[in-house]
Amino acid sequence: MARIVMKFGGTSMAGIERIRSVAARIKREVEAGNEVAVVVSAMAGETDRLVNFCREASSLYDRREYDVVVSSGEQVTSGLLAIALQAVGVRARSWMGWQLPIRTSDGHGSARIAEIDTRALGAALSSGEVAVIPGFQGVAMGERVTTLGRGGSDTSAVAMAAAMQADRCDIYTDVDGVYTTDPRIVPRARKLKRVTYEEMLELASVGAKVLQTRSVGLAMKEKVRVQVLSSFLDEDGGSEPGTLIVGEEELENMEQQLITGIAHDKNDAKITLTAVLDQPGSVAAIFSPLADAGINVDMIVQNVAHSGDSTDVTFTVPTADLARSIEVLNAARERIGFIDLKHDTRVSKISVVGVGMRSHAGVAATMFQTLGERGINIQAITTSEIKVSVLIEEDYTELAVRVLHTAYGLDAEEDPA
Amino acid sequence: MARIVMKFGGTSMAGIERIRSVAARIKREVEAGNEVAVVVSAMAGETDRLVNFCREASSLYDRREYDVVVSSGEQVTSGLLAIALQAVGVRARSWMGWQLPIRTSDGHGSARIAEIDTRALGAALSSGEVAVIPGFQGVAMGERVTTLGRGGSDTSAVAMAAAMQADRCDIYTDVDGVYTTDPRIVPRARKLKRVTYEEMLELASVGAKVLQTRSVGLAMKEKVRVQVLSSFLDEDGGSEPGTLIVGEEELENMEQQLITGIAHDKNDAKITLTAVLDQPGSVAAIFSPLADAGINVDMIVQNVAHSGDSTDVTFTVPTADLARSIEVLNAARERIGFIDLKHDTRVSKISVVGVGMRSHAGVAATMFQTLGERGINIQAITTSEIKVSVLIEEDYTELAVRVLHTAYGLDAEEDPA
Repeated sequence: MARIVMKFGGTSMAGIERIRSVAARIKREVEAGNEVAVVVSAMAGETDRLVNFCREASSLYDRREYDVVVSSGEQVTSGLLAIALQAVGVRARSWMGWQLPIRTSDGHGSARIAEIDTRALGAALSSGEVAVIPGFQGVAMGERVTTLGRGGSDTSAVAMAAAMQADRCDIYTDVDGVYTTDPRIVPRARKLKRVTYEEMLELASVGAKVLQTRSVGLAMKEKVRVQVLSSFLDEDGGSEPGTLIVGEEELENMEQQLITGIAHDKNDAKITLTAVLDQPGSVAAIFSPLADAGINVDMIVQNVAHSGDSTDVTFTVPTADLARSIEVLNAARERIGFIDLKHDTRVSKISVVGVGMRSHAGVAATMFQTLGERGINIQAITTSEIKVSVLIEEDYTELAVRVLHTAYGLDAEEDPA
Repeated sequence: MARIVMKFGGTSMAGIERIRSVAARIKREVEAGNEVAVVVSAMAGETDRLVNFCREASSLYDRREYDVVVSSGEQVTSGLLAIALQAVGVRARSWMGWQLPIRTSDGHGSARIAEIDTRALGAALSSGEVAVIPGFQGVAMGERVTTLGRGGSDTSAVAMAAAMQADRCDIYTDVDGVYTTDPRIVPRARKLKRVTYEEMLELASVGAKVLQTRSVGLAMKEKVRVQVLSSFLDEDGGSEPGTLIVGEEELENMEQQLITGIAHDKNDAKITLTAVLDQPGSVAAIFSPLADAGINVDMIVQNVAHSGDSTDVTFTVPTADLARSIEVLNAARERIGFIDLKHDTRVSKISVVGVGMRSHAGVAATMFQTLGERGINIQAITTSEIKVSVLIEEDYTELAVRVLHTAYGLDAEEDPA
C-alpha cells in the first residue's frame, strides 16, 4: 500500500466527460490498495474568465477579493470530481483550503503555503476515503481566502504530498513527460526517464513550462518524488511511464549525461543604456530602482569603456515589465547619467541544462562554437552551476535549439515521426 | 442613520456593467449615512449551469458536494461587488457564509439558517465598511458548506436583517413591487403600497413568485420590515417606492380592503382514486405513504359515497411529484383498496387573499358566484383564515383571474397601458 497524491490540470477537468475519465483513473489506484489524495485545477478557461471579471470590475482590484472570486473555479471541480467518484463506487469528499486548513501567507494573489493541517485528512484517507482538494487555494490567518498564483495547483499538489509524507506525487498534464527539448522544434527530442530537481528547476525557469517553478523548488526542498505523466489514457486505461523528478543521488550511471536538455524563452526584452558614466555607484543607480519596482533583471553585460569615462550597460527584463522598466530608468536618468536608452524585444534566451556540467569542462565552449559556426551572434551570457544561457536574435531560436540538440548528442536514434 | 440590508437578485448581478450599477445604488445609501449589508445572488443562469454539472456527474449526486459546487456562484458575485464598490470609493469586503459564520442545519440542498454570528460583521459595519454577503449559503456544524434551496438568497437577506436588527430589508427584483394580480393577465392590476406578512405568505405559496415563501415566514416571525422594489433605476438614479411588507397593525384604515390580491398556480396536478372503501383508516392509508415519500398534498375532496361502502377521493400534489405519487399509491393499492387512479395536470389553482376576510363574510360566496356566472366549474376548494383557493380547469385561468379582479373591486381606475 502506498499513499499518493494525484494532480489533474485544467484540460483534464474541462467538462463532465473528462472528469468521469479522471474518476476512473483514480479508481484504479484505489483498487490497487493505495490511499489517494487528489488535487484539481479549475476547468480549462475558467480561471481566465474569473480573472477577467475582476479586471473588468476594476483595474486596481483588491487582491483579497480577487482571491475570493478566482478560487471558486477549483471549488467547482473538486465538488464535481467527488460526485463523479461516488458515482463509480469510490468513497470521496472534497476539502476546501479553509476546511483542512491549508495555511498560507497573506500575500494575496501569490500567497505561499505555510502549513497544511493533515489531521482530519489523514483520518479520512486511512478510512479509505479519497480526498479531493482544490488546488491553487489556501487561507491566511484571519480566515481570508488566498490563491497561490497562476499554475499554483502544482505547488498545492507537491505541498500536499510533503505534508502527507506521500510516497509519490503524480502530476497529470497534457504533455506526457519532460523532453530533452521542445518536440515541436526538434522531432527527435527524447522523453527523459529521470531528471534531477535542480535540472527541472533550471528548465522550468527558462521556459519549459511543464510545472510551476515554485512547485519544483518545493519538491526539491521536501524531497517529494514527483512524476510528470500524460492525462490521456493508453489502451488498457493506464498511462505510459512519464518523467520522474528525483534527487541527483538517484540518477543511475547510465543516465549521467553531459547535458539533459535545451530550453528557449522568448519572454525577455533587452535594454541598453549608452554612455553610462563609468564611476563607482553608477551600476547601483541602474539596478536599485528596478529592484525597488519589483522588476527582475536577468542577464547583465557591461561593455568595455568607450573613452576613459563612459560605458554601455545591457541587461534583460521580462517583456511584461519592459514599459515599467523604461519609466523607472528615465525617472532615474540624472542619477544614472546615461545618454540613450535602447530596447529590443526580438531576443531569445537559449539555455543548456545538465548536472553533468559540474564534472565536465568545455560545455560553454561547445555552445559558443556551435552557434558561431552557424553565424549566430551571442548578445549576452549568464551561467549557473548546471546551466549556460545565451541571448540571441529571436529569429535564430529554432535553428539554435536544433544545432545544440545535435551537438550535445541528444537526438533520438530514429526520428519518431 | 439607519442600518439596512439590501438584496440583489441574479438579473441585477448578470455582468460587470450591472454590478457597477448596483455599486452606485449602494453608494447612495452609504452617502446618506446608513450602515449597509448587501446580500447577493449568483449571476443569472449561473446556478442552473452549476446544478446541471452536478446532475450530469451523477443523477444521485451527494447533496454535500452539490452545495460545494452551487454555492460558488454567489462567492463570485460577492467578491466582484466588493471590488466594484471599492472602485467607486466605498470601503467594502465580502464575507463568505463560513467566515461570519452563518450556521445552518445539515439539511444539504435546502438547509435552514440556525444562527448568524454578527460580531465581526457588526464591527465592520460600525466602522463604515459595507459588508457583501453571498446569499443562499451557510455552513453546518462540522464546517461543511450548505445551501438554502432555490430562491434562498431572499431568506439569507431577511435572516441577516433579523440578526443585525436592521431597520429595513430592501429586496431589489426585476418586478417593482407586489401587485393585486399578475399584470401580464390583468393590465389594470395595481401595485400595492403595503401588504401584510400573512397575505404575502399566502400569495407566495400560491404562485406569486416575488419572494421565496420561506423568507416571508421568517420576516413575519422576526418582524423584519421588508420592502420589494425594482432593481432598475429611475432618471435620477433612485428607485420608485415599491411594496412594503408589514405587520397587520401597521396597515392604515384606508388600505383595509376586503381582498388584497388574486393569485394563480398551474403547478399542481389532480389525482382521483375511485371506489375507495369507505371505512375507518382508508384515508390514512392514502396519505401516510405520500407523506412518508415527502410529497405535499394540498386540496382534498371526499365525494359522497357511491353505494353504501365506497367513495371517490380527489386531491392535488405538485406536478413535479405526480409520477412518484402514482408509484407510491399503486404500491399501496391493496391497503387503500381503490379501483381506479385518474390524474389530470390540466388544472389551475386560483386564490383570493386578504386579511379583510377575517372581518367580512361572503368572500367565498362572491368567488363561487362570479366563477359560476362564467360557467367555470369548481373541482375542489380549500380555505385558510385569509385565503380561499379553488381548483379549476387550466384553460379558464386567465378568465377567472380577470373576473375575480373586477368582482373584488381591484381594477385600477384607468388602464395604465
